[in-house]
Amino acid sequence: MGFSYYRTVRLSDTDAAGVIFFPRLLSICHEAYEEALLSVRIDLKTFFRDSTSAIPIVQANISFFRPIFAGDRLLVNLEPKLLKDSEFEIVYSILLARANRECAAKAITRHVCIDPNSRTRIKLPTAIANWIEI
Amino acid sequence: MGFSYYRTVRLSDTDAAGVIFFPRLLSICHEAYEEALLSVRIDLKTFFRDSTSAIPIVQANISFFRPIFAGDRLLVNLEPKLLKDSEFEIVYSILLARANRECAAKAITRHVCIDPNSRTRIKLPTAIANWIEI
Amino acid sequence: MGFSYYRTVRLSDTDAAGVIFFPRLLSICHEAYEEALLSVRIDLKTFFRDSTSAIPIVQANISFFRPIFAGDRLLVNLEPKLLKDSEFEIVYSILLARANRECAAKAITRHVCIDPNSRTRIKLPTAIANWIEI
Amino acid sequence: MGFSYYRTVRLSDTDAAGVIFFPRLLSICHEAYEEALLSVRIDLKTFFRDSTSAIPIVQANISFFRPIFAGDRLLVNLEPKLLKDSEFEIVYSILLARANRECAAKAITRHVCIDPNSRTRIKLPTAIANWIEI
Repeated sequence: MGFSYYRTVRLSDTDAAGVIFFPRLLSICHEAYEEALLSVRIDLKTFFRDSTSAIPIVQANISFFRPIFAGDRLLVNLEPKLLKDSEFEIVYSILLARANRECAAKAITRHVCIDPNSRTRIKLPTAIANWIEI
Repeated sequence: MGFSYYRTVRLSDTDAAGVIFFPRLLSICHEAYEEALLSVRIDLKTFFRDSTSAIPIVQANISFFRPIFAGDRLLVNLEPKLLKDSEFEIVYSILLARANRECAAKAITRHVCIDPNSRTRIKLPTAIANWIEI
Repeated sequence: MGFSYYRTVRLSDTDAAGVIFFPRLLSICHEAYEEALLSVRIDLKTFFRDSTSAIPIVQANISFFRPIFAGDRLLVNLEPKLLKDSEFEIVYSILLARANRECAAKAITRHVCIDPNSRTRIKLPTAIANWIEI
Repeated sequence: MGFSYYRTVRLSDTDAAGVIFFPRLLSICHEAYEEALLSVRIDLKTFFRDSTSAIPIVQANISFFRPIFAGDRLLVNLEPKLLKDSEFEIVYSILLARANRECAAKAITRHVCIDPNSRTRIKLPTAIANWIEI
């Protein structure tokens, strides 16, 4: 059903060129993903340190349509989509509050569930599959 | 009078040792400072690119009392204090929501106002002096 | 002709899941780009603060093939390619020294030259066009 | 006996104010510490994930004497000092290559060895104690 995350751009997100440093916006997208997991009561501390399954991001891409500055208020809309029983992707739209919510950027991350020891694919944990299917 | 800032610790704030990467907490303190400036209508985009005055941080220190993990909810209480007409410091208390607001860390930053060209001290801009004196 | 950049993965590049935090590898790719510019005597301080032209990254993508850990030694091979007189892309191969230089990741960034005031496309500065054409 | 680490300042180390974002210099100091550990053959991947001992930084401070820009070449000189059998500190001098190695900043980090489960102090691992005593 999607999830919305509000985030003010911080000085530490920018660089000397005066706008957001581009990988930082992928980091902000990941924050939105974490906030979505917290909203369905997934404990991040154990989730990211789980010894039985890990869900690394295997691909990411991002496109920028407008400059983003320190102090800008962003709205990140996130939409997860199941691709296989071991894989999902998330589509992010990053809207600028100051510009009538015009789209400033779009991003996608693709996530694959693996056994952290053998590094072979396994099924997504139920909590994650449920979150995607909501 | 102080200012309060709530912040969830993100995966990107942590490192492979499993807890917050220590300079990241100073970065979170700076976010609290930025939020305090936004709360008195200071425009960050122009503030940090001002060609007539700059207010670099000349000193910072931080002490940790408890481990901080991804997903932890922090409350940063901030107290600015005027030291000279060109200088102020900010004291930060970082409290852990999950541990009855016990103090997880304390930090101080010291800020000096300079002419960015000559790099000599000048008086703090009125907007900043007013914010400190509130 | 390409350019090579060696980089040790730092603790600050990783997160609590124990491997590199994915946007950090795009940041390392950008370091390789900066080092390539330094190698042809482009002054980064003025380059990134130029008031007559800016070259923002408008698109980036990255794919991961192997986990990357703190202490890993990476070799980033970079290949720039002119797309238009206002646009170029860079392809990055990230090789793992410890695994016989097997490819750990691939990335692409796309860069467009604009007038920072009007935000319309302009020709790439000669120094950059020359670097791409080498 | 000390250790020296050379580091070029990257765009990602700076912010929209045009100079280094202050916590990033502590991060660079930590890189120098990691490089010193690598130089005595300490494996960082296992070191930072050790389940029998952890050595968190409990205090850090930094003072800035000169502005640091993207592209600047830094020399970080590091001096570790044993304080107790469970504790040491590291003093860092950050010199600017472009300014005849004038000191741009100084920093100190204090490290305490603990049992990660009980979080009580334990003796430093031999490899670390040996590195400090060299």
